[in-house]
Amino acid sequence: MLERLMPHYTKQDFPTHNVRRFLEPGPIVLVSSAYRDETNIMTMGWYMMMEFEPALIGCCISAANHSFELVRKSRQCVINLPTVDLAAEAVKIGNSSGRDIDKFSEFGLTPKPGGRVRAPLIAECYANFECIVRDSSWVSKYNVFVFEVVKAHVATSPKYPKTIHYRGDGEFMISGENTRRYRKLFRPDMLG
Amino acid sequence: MLERLMPHYTKQDFPTHNVRRFLEPGPIVLVSSAYRDETNIMTMGWYMMMEFEPALIGCCISAANHSFELVRKSRQCVINLPTVDLAAEAVKIGNSSGRDIDKFSEFGLTPKPGGRVRAPLIAECYANFECIVRDSSWVSKYNVFVFEVVKAHVATSPKYPKTIHYRGDGEFMISGENTRRYRKLFRPDMLG
Repeated sequence: MLERLMPHYTKQDFPTHNVRRFLEPGPIVLVSSAYRDETNIMTMGWYMMMEFEPALIGCCISAANHSFELVRKSRQCVINLPTVDLAAEAVKIGNSSGRDIDKFSEFGLTPKPGGRVRAPLIAECYANFECIVRDSSWVSKYNVFVFEVVKAHVATSPKYPKTIHYRGDGEFMISGENTRRYRKLFRPDMLG
Repeated sequence: MLERLMPHYTKQDFPTHNVRRFLEPGPIVLVSSAYRDETNIMTMGWYMMMEFEPALIGCCISAANHSFELVRKSRQCVINLPTVDLAAEAVKIGNSSGRDIDKFSEFGLTPKPGGRVRAPLIAECYANFECIVRDSSWVSKYNVFVFEVVKAHVATSPKYPKTIHYRGDGEFMISGENTRRYRKLFRPDMLG
């Protein structure tokens, strides 16, 4: 079997109030979690920015997922941003359960210790956002957690990661052109 | 001045449980609303799918927006999906206030009556999702409304609209390639 060539990034700290830059366009993300001696990864597409500072993200994590319990009990996670190089892994992660396998070893991903949470960062992802649960009042009603990003790590290059956006039924949209062509139409106070 | 050529679509009813197909990839949308004799449009990027059926969408609408009051009071809106042809209009809509102008006439957009709500559909958009507020318990805390899509209208072609995804600071990502290349990696029960 051919060795799979995995992406490798050099990362640096990134201002948490600007994580919207990578999340607002709507890519699928990988949520890593840890509780006691167990870790897991899930694929997530249902989330939204809710505030810049503190950087709040609302996330819908189905209670059927093994990760749901790890996140609920540890009140932490890491939101990892995969690029299209990890599309196959992202699908396999979403189509298997941490009840049956260790997804890090199964899919050749490297857990890295974070600075603020116990949940492991996925080294092969373009960015890692360490998160703490700030509001769990909609967990029982909608499976919605509100996380605050407390530390962000982002690759120094490329500037524009090729991200994967899910359309359902096994179909993805891959991020296309990035443009500043409409920037002149913005009011100055709407920029930044 | 040159006449602006606006997109024109023929639309048909679309199953509400599958609106995720267009919203989960994360494009910016235009929210139209009506209350008494007033209508308005706002640009929105902070939203997420929360349930397939009923089709629930969580939406963060800043209380500073004029639309916030129209939506809060009428408990309805239409989520309209613009394509890149409407990028300039989407920016201008997001950078002006319905307190000062009528955005439909100002930006050459056509209000069309919906089937289930009083808020007008934007004819020039690729899709229109008529929504009713199902939960306002997070409105005062986070400006988050939970809408149910009660009727969906989607253009018969093209199959893949070129959508606009906001990265902040006046920069957009335009949707790229659509692919079913990873579909064989899905468990059959994860498809559909």
